[in-house]
Amino acid sequence: MLARSLQRLARPGARLMSGAPGSEKIAMVGSGNFGSALVRILGANAQRHAVFDDEVRMYVYEEMIDGKPLTEIINTTHENVKYLKGAKFTPNVRAVPDLAEAVKGATMVCFCLPHQFLKPLMPTIKASVAPGAKCLSAIKGIDFDDNGVVLISDLLREGLNADVSVLMGANVANDMAHDQFCETTIGYKDEKNGELFRLAFDAPALKVGTVKDTVGVELCGALKNIVAIGAGFSDGLGYGGNTKAALIRIGLKEMIKFCKMFYPNAGIDDNTFLESCGVADLITTCFGGRNRKCAEAYAKANKTKSLEQIEAELLAGQKLQGTLTAKEVNHILKMKGLEHEFPFFTTVYKISYENAPFSALTETPYQ
Amino acid sequence: MLARSLQRLARPGARLMSGAPGSEKIAMVGSGNFGSALVRILGANAQRHAVFDDEVRMYVYEEMIDGKPLTEIINTTHENVKYLKGAKFTPNVRAVPDLAEAVKGATMVCFCLPHQFLKPLMPTIKASVAPGAKCLSAIKGIDFDDNGVVLISDLLREGLNADVSVLMGANVANDMAHDQFCETTIGYKDEKNGELFRLAFDAPALKVGTVKDTVGVELCGALKNIVAIGAGFSDGLGYGGNTKAALIRIGLKEMIKFCKMFYPNAGIDDNTFLESCGVADLITTCFGGRNRKCAEAYAKANKTKSLEQIEAELLAGQKLQGTLTAKEVNHILKMKGLEHEFPFFTTVYKISYENAPFSALTETPYQ
Repeated sequence: MLARSLQRLARPGARLMSGAPGSEKIAMVGSGNFGSALVRILGANAQRHAVFDDEVRMYVYEEMIDGKPLTEIINTTHENVKYLKGAKFTPNVRAVPDLAEAVKGATMVCFCLPHQFLKPLMPTIKASVAPGAKCLSAIKGIDFDDNGVVLISDLLREGLNADVSVLMGANVANDMAHDQFCETTIGYKDEKNGELFRLAFDAPALKVGTVKDTVGVELCGALKNIVAIGAGFSDGLGYGGNTKAALIRIGLKEMIKFCKMFYPNAGIDDNTFLESCGVADLITTCFGGRNRKCAEAYAKANKTKSLEQIEAELLAGQKLQGTLTAKEVNHILKMKGLEHEFPFFTTVYKISYENAPFSALTETPYQ
Repeated sequence: MLARSLQRLARPGARLMSGAPGSEKIAMVGSGNFGSALVRILGANAQRHAVFDDEVRMYVYEEMIDGKPLTEIINTTHENVKYLKGAKFTPNVRAVPDLAEAVKGATMVCFCLPHQFLKPLMPTIKASVAPGAKCLSAIKGIDFDDNGVVLISDLLREGLNADVSVLMGANVANDMAHDQFCETTIGYKDEKNGELFRLAFDAPALKVGTVKDTVGVELCGALKNIVAIGAGFSDGLGYGGNTKAALIRIGLKEMIKFCKMFYPNAGIDDNTFLESCGVADLITTCFGGRNRKCAEAYAKANKTKSLEQIEAELLAGQKLQGTLTAKEVNHILKMKGLEHEFPFFTTVYKISYENAPFSALTETPYQ
């Protein structure tokens, strides 16, 4: 492991890391399942690399667990007993219930929370972080306005006036928490910042790839959930491996087309789709994730239950991202008259929200 | 379905089909599980499109089933009761036990049999087919000689002095036999021939994509089995979706690198890996196939059973393609001093045949 870790440090990018010891202070905004899995790695790496200040602060939306504040439990037991039970943080991770305090003086701010909660937090964050703070979004979502797609990273760039990298990959939090080997992808605009975040996340059990394509990386993280809905329908209808693989492939092609059509000048790189954020995350999501699972249940029930009922039964209050993304993407496609260019995305939407039969899944003439 | 079928015929390539009615006579060499699934489609399409002669002949290695010759059973019941039970051929498919008769006058010859059996058949085939006959290989294998990789399509080109297309994809035969929607990819050198084979195979439940890259398509079909061995190890070791997806992705990258390094001037097209023969076949094979299954059992038994024992227990006489391909690819890599360039292929080989521990699967510093 040591040899491997040294090898990583010898990468060309490592030369870009010239900060004074302790000069980079890391904060995480968000403390859910995935955010906690990431903070666990950040804590260990802050101890491992001199450039990082030892303390990693995590903003935790305070709640009471068995009569005790969650932050107090985390800071005593070094474990997020509510969202990532069974995995210990290094003691240098500090849970902070006050947002301004959590990000005060931070030079590297990571985001991992439902994007709906983001906007009201940004003024406080902007006022509290260090000048020139670098951000990283691990939020796998997408937003829309009257003009079309709005990337979460763009919301952050605008709200914080900061450089923003993104992190997406085949990263099921509970497996990461047990140090099962996996990969992730960081998309950066500023190479120096991308390398700094790579150093913060790369670990023996988490190999970080970097690409200069934040848009491709970020859109993969959102659009893959639409494909997972289609894959779940295929499972629910009892189709075998051939059909499911065909639908995943067709979905991947539409993901690529969507990126290139909506961001023609953003430097979308074909190789991005071969990174962890692309094909690997797609595979994990289409075989394991909750979008696939709910879609399977919906198809098995043959629409005798609504998607809302299935969400309620299977997700305990969480929302299905895939169908929501399918709906929002469809809204944009319809607005721009492009539904026919994305027959798979459109079919997933129409089965989920309109009266299209499940048979449309395999009878649509895909391109 | 009709609209879809018409739409297909209206594709630009269709204009290339100018043969006189009945002028193309199709033969299939091979009658196993996959060969039979393909012949079933060829039979239906020979009836559907005027350019094809009505009869599709299938060379069947004769054997006795319950006291009757297999060819007689096929020609009476229109079903290959031994290798594709439960799926009917159209009556225009004729099983022929004599190779020369089976391919006599054929203008389109398809191959689907273990490649070890191919060489001794070629002189008879060459002497019997129509002048200028076009060939298509659906053989998912690879051969080697003292100089390195030998493609099965090249063996055919040399042995038959013919143009050879290839067909590879996510095509589990039993699912195809039940008309579950799937895709396949035809790689061609001569566009006219590629289009003719597309017309012969494209069907409502089998969508054919075509690419001018026979080498990429064919190598995908062989190399994916090495990746499936690694995926099976991951399953057997109890690793979750993150790790498996990471290994599949790393394997895919090595497949692409192998193609480009060994065939730098063959027109390997990045898009080939996004076709059914690429990412889709890889997914199916890494989640469903027999290579994955045996590798899982080998890892679960923690080498207390040999690969040969596991083959015997699980495959009923068939051979594991993946480990064989891993061995042959390793032989070539070693010969050319390129093992370090393909750490995943090398690790799969070393776990399978040398004393490398299973932990090497996730501890190798992949590139």
